Parts: sequence; C-alpha cells; structure tokens
Amino acid sequence: MASRKSPETKEEKLALIYENLAETINPEIIEGILDEGRAVKVYWGTATTGKPHTGYFVPAIKIAQLLHAGCEVTILLADIHGFLDNLKAPLELVEHRSNYYQWTIRAMLEAVGVDTSLLKFVKGSSYQKSPDYIMDVYRLCSVTSEHDAKKAGAEIVKQSTNAPLSGLLYPILQILDEEHLGVDVQFGGVDQRKLFTAAKEWLPKLGYKQRAHIMNPMIPGLHGGKMSSSEEDSKIDLLDSPETITKKIRKAEAAPKIVEGNGLLAFVEYVLLPAAELKTGARTFTVERTRDALEPLVYSDVKAMHADYQNDVLTPQLLKPAVADAIAHLTAHIRDSFAASPEWQNLTTLAYPPPAKKEKKVKNKGTHYPVRPKGDEAAKETPKDEAPKEA
Amino acid sequence: MASRKSPETKEEKLALIYENLAETINPEIIEGILDEGRAVKVYWGTATTGKPHTGYFVPAIKIAQLLHAGCEVTILLADIHGFLDNLKAPLELVEHRSNYYQWTIRAMLEAVGVDTSLLKFVKGSSYQKSPDYIMDVYRLCSVTSEHDAKKAGAEIVKQSTNAPLSGLLYPILQILDEEHLGVDVQFGGVDQRKLFTAAKEWLPKLGYKQRAHIMNPMIPGLHGGKMSSSEEDSKIDLLDSPETITKKIRKAEAAPKIVEGNGLLAFVEYVLLPAAELKTGARTFTVERTRDALEPLVYSDVKAMHADYQNDVLTPQLLKPAVADAIAHLTAHIRDSFAASPEWQNLTTLAYPPPAKKEKKVKNKGTHYPVRPKGDEAAKETPKDEAPKEA
Repeated sequence: MASRKSPETKEEKLALIYENLAETINPEIIEGILDEGRAVKVYWGTATTGKPHTGYFVPAIKIAQLLHAGCEVTILLADIHGFLDNLKAPLELVEHRSNYYQWTIRAMLEAVGVDTSLLKFVKGSSYQKSPDYIMDVYRLCSVTSEHDAKKAGAEIVKQSTNAPLSGLLYPILQILDEEHLGVDVQFGGVDQRKLFTAAKEWLPKLGYKQRAHIMNPMIPGLHGGKMSSSEEDSKIDLLDSPETITKKIRKAEAAPKIVEGNGLLAFVEYVLLPAAELKTGARTFTVERTRDALEPLVYSDVKAMHADYQNDVLTPQLLKPAVADAIAHLTAHIRDSFAASPEWQNLTTLAYPPPAKKEKKVKNKGTHYPVRPKGDEAAKETPKDEAPKEA
Repeated sequence: MASRKSPETKEEKLALIYENLAETINPEIIEGILDEGRAVKVYWGTATTGKPHTGYFVPAIKIAQLLHAGCEVTILLADIHGFLDNLKAPLELVEHRSNYYQWTIRAMLEAVGVDTSLLKFVKGSSYQKSPDYIMDVYRLCSVTSEHDAKKAGAEIVKQSTNAPLSGLLYPILQILDEEHLGVDVQFGGVDQRKLFTAAKEWLPKLGYKQRAHIMNPMIPGLHGGKMSSSEEDSKIDLLDSPETITKKIRKAEAAPKIVEGNGLLAFVEYVLLPAAELKTGARTFTVERTRDALEPLVYSDVKAMHADYQNDVLTPQLLKPAVADAIAHLTAHIRDSFAASPEWQNLTTLAYPPPAKKEKKVKNKGTHYPVRPKGDEAAKETPKDEAPKEA
C-alpha cells in the first residue's frame, strides 16, 4: 500500500528514522545495528487513560516512518498506569481502553499505508508485575536517589512533596521497560529528554546496556494552545466525521502571517506532509483556491509554505479548509475500519461508557495521577500535541 | 518446658502481651480478637543483613511473651531488603543469612522455654515479588505523597534528597506486609511509631483494615552507647562462650549510681527478668556477693534494683559478673543447639564467610542502604539495642 519507496541503504534508512526529529541520543547504537544488518527495535509507550485523538498522529507518523525503515516497533499500552490513574476506575474499564488504543493506533498506521507486520503491542500488565521486573524495580530504587528520580521526571511528572510517590517510581519503570521490552531504542517527545538522559546512566548500574533515544519536537496543538478535553470542539477525535472536522478546524486559532505557535502549520509539517509521502510517494500538501478562481498552492517544502503564510498569500481562511480536508482524508481509513468492525464498535461502548452524572464526580475526585499537573485536566485526554508517554 | 503459668483469662493474656511495652495503638483490635476467642496474629520483621547478637533478645523476649500468651507470631525475614542492602552481595549469601537468622531466633525463643508451635518464619521474597503484592505497591504509591512517605520513615530511614528511592518505598512495603502476612498486629520498637501511625491511615485507602501496633521502648545497649560492629568487644554474639561474655561485659560502660542510660540495668529489666519468669516461673535476678561473704542480692522488682544501684549497694563491680553469668545461662541452649547441629554450623560458614581483604573493599563501596545513616556502619550489624526492623 505504501507508495513511498522503502529505504534500502543504511543512509536512506537513517534519513527516514531521523526525519523531523528534534534530537537523538547515542545514534551510534542505531547505526551499529544497521551495520549488523538486523532490525532496529524501538519502543514507544502510552498510558491508556483517555481517548486517542488527532494529536496522536504526531508520534504515529514517526512510528510509521520507523516501520517503513524496517524497524521493529513495540507499542507499550501502559494499562497498569491507566488503572493507577484513578483507583476508582475498575480494571476492566482500563482493559477495554487498552484494547481501544490498540485498534485505533493500528488503524492510524494502516491509514498511511505502512506495513505493520513488524508492529507489536504489549500491555504493561503482561510483565510489570513479574518477579524479575519487580526485583529490578527494587534494585533500581536502591541505587537511584530521590533527587535523581525527580530530575529525571522533571518535565513529565508533577513536582511537589505532596505529589504521589508513584511519580518518583515513574522514571524507574519507564527506564526498566527498555530492558524488559528488549529494545534498542526508546522514542518519545523532547519533554522526555531528562528521563532519556537518566536511562543512559541508570541501566548500566544494574548491568544492563544503554539504549539510543530519539525525540520528536513538541509542537503546538491544532488550536494553537493546549487541547482541552473539557472543550469538545478543541479536540478532533479520530472518528469524527469530515463535517465535524471542518467545523472544529474552522474554530482553530491561527493568527494571520504568524508562523510561530501555529498548530495548523505544524500539523502540516509533522503529520500531513510525511503522511502524504508515506501514502502516495509524493510529499505534497495542496491548498485549493477555487473560490478566487486561482491555481491551487501545492507545497512539498515547509519553508515555502511558511514564507507564503508570512506574506499572507497562504491565509488562515485558505489554510483551514485545506487542513480539514487533509485530515478527513487521512482519517477515512480509520472511520471505514471502525464502521466495518462490530468488535471495535462494541469495545468503544465498553471503554467509554456514557458519563453518568455521579460517575463524573467520582472521576474528578479520584484524579491524582502525577503526570498530569494539578488542574490540568486537559493533559489526561490530550497531552500537548503529543500522545502521552507512559503515564 | 516454660514454667511460667500460661495465661488463661483475657486479662492475664493482655497483661503478658502489654508487659514492658512503651505504647500500643488500637488496643481494642487485640481485645476484640481475644473476646472472639481466636489467636491474635502478630508480625515482627527483621532484615537479614548482619548477624543476630544479644541485642536481639529485647524483641525476642517480647515475642516469647506473645507466644506464651497464645499469639500466632510471624517473623518476617526480610531477605529482599537484605539483598538490596548491598547489590554486590550475591543472593545466595543473603539466602544463607536468612536461614541463619531463622536457626538463631528459634533457638533464642527455645532458650526461654516457650512453646514455638505457633511461631512461623516467612521470607520476604516468598511474597514481595508476587503480582498481587506489587499491584498493591503501585496502588499505595499512587495514593501516598512523597511527604507522607518521608514522614512515616522519618526515624528509621535516612532522610535526604540524596538518599536512595528505596528509602521511600520502605514504609510502603512494611505497611503492606501487615495485609499480605494476614496479621492483626505489628510489633516493633517505638522508633517505628510514625510508620505505625501511617499504617493506620494508609491501609484503609486500599480498602484494607487497620491493624493494632505494639511497641517496645528503645533501651540503651549493653555497653551504654551504640554497639559497633567494628569493635568486636562491644557486641556479644549469641554463640560467644561464657568466658568471652564475661570479658566483654567487664568492659561495658556502667557509671556507678547512675541508672539512666545504663545498658546493663536495662538488659536485666527487659530481658533477664522476663526471661527468668518465662523459664522458671520466678521473676528473679540474683547478684552474688560471695567475695564479700554477704548474702546474694535477689531482685524481682526493677525499682528495688534501681534503688540499690543509686545507693551504690549494687555496684557496677557486682552487677557485671551477675549479668555476664545470666547471659551465659540464657545463651547456653543456643550454644548447645549449635554444637548439636552440623547443618547450622555449615550454614554459618556459608552465611558469614571469613572476610577476604578484597571482599571487604567491595562491601564498603556497595554500602548504600537507606536505613543505615551514612557513615554509621554499626547500624548494619547492630542497630541500636533492638534488632533492626525490616530493612
């Protein structure tokens, strides 16, 4: 299905692996594995707490590129953390949500046409309760100071002495996952940088090898600022209809001429252009101008698009319907797969039962997960522009 | 064997359970169980790091009294903690040490003649790596703040941001042990008070019931101050010969007329008098005065002994040989059992191999256990005057 030519040489593979990344730690590990001729094993984790939305396309596109470059990708569905996020939520609900995540993420990757035969989903609960794993948790806790654990989680875990202790365990678990999932590389946003640096130092203390780390930049949300789960309109669900997508994008914040902090432009750069290339082989993003009876603007280069935007050639009024249209196309496969799968449909009702008034109250009371800053309910459902790391 | 009459009524049982305690939390739990007519289940934990010495008689006598009062006593041999105490120490060594602890503690209890049929030894590793247990660790960590964990461990865990994270897990584990060992009561020194108070609050957060807590006072060591493992003479091994015991006690610090901080008098009060009562039915401690051709001083009452000491009737010169003699008698059964058991003898060599010069260096480098204050090597082998709690 993927029309982008599969990379064959080491250089082609590296180019695809590193495309659009903000930073890489220990790239020599990745390069050494390519020299050996074996598949690079990468892991990316997500807590199965909220509901995946279009923001998840940012890591998903990188994962699609990794798969296309011949990497074996493990997606960790951090269900234990999902359960711990709210002790009042029964384990079955979290179980249904991890299954929902699995269906959705797979469909997102299929949507760009990459081969998913090297894709693997692993639930945290399948090994994070095993004796080997827990002995490593105890061992790593005994050689890691509170100070270092705090530093490692500084940008991803709420920092205060009133924060739950699980916030300090968080880096311990995420770092051990590299060893216990048997991977070579961990992938995450640059907000994971301190944790990834810690991983380099900590794993060798237990006699385990260092891993490489690849990091996506943090990009602004589609609506400029943070997406908010409390504002339904600010979050585009992966199953939203084309009409709903258009409506929501129309409300997106996009100041004319200003490129910085513009979530629509960032989404084109990090999702729509690479998705088009993976799917069709052509790295293009088209902006129709039929209303003004002008030729469409066709971009394959982010710089050209930014220049046009700054000069108001590419106005928000032109950009918005183009982005909405591209998202509707990108998510068509997801909607189709959902429509064709009674199993997935059934799962959705189980995973996200309609909120009863009473239930909502319980949920708010039980909210104390350390990764989510207090009062930032948004982060639970829609962490910045990235899918959340393990939570 | 025990000559003290077994208590029969609730009041008699309570009197023996509470004898010489500093404090009890939730005594109504203990009393309620006695009203039900079932055996009260008590747990006491010890990290299997060093080597049990005569200081362990302080908790052992209380355990003997609990057994004599019909309680079921579980002794937790905290081997995982023993292993974590020094990552360089192989697991087999720790395994041998827990077995050594078991042999020794059983012999200490037999030495005072109590029925040990209701005594049970449990190794931490037998359940502290199980999925149920670890899920409770995760859950309790997610509802306990760093601040509260620190407060709970304030007197038993080294407090600094550079301390290992395991120090914060320490209270979590010790409190969960109450649930997972299925006990009604936890027994420890008053240094455990903050942890015991936390246990009352924390267990109900996971839907578990509160336990009662009984606490021994902290008493001065036989040598007045702290025992030190680096000074062989300051620590009386449970297998020391009567001659060695006499020699060591002769060097004990004991200022004439001063009762406060006098480890010899405290040992008589908390070990020798109750041990004599359990063993013979007579709560007496005898001080010979044959050299001065005087009648022996026979005490059954601590107050009378303190009064004589303050008036210099009972001088350090008289007290020391009497204590040495009583310890030699009390430990005779332990020496005899050891002499009769090739298995125990063999175990001793395995558990405490003669230190090679190189090995010693490695040991010092690996020393980072949170319970032991930095630089206080003594605490590892001979924690204050009490046997250490789980470490």
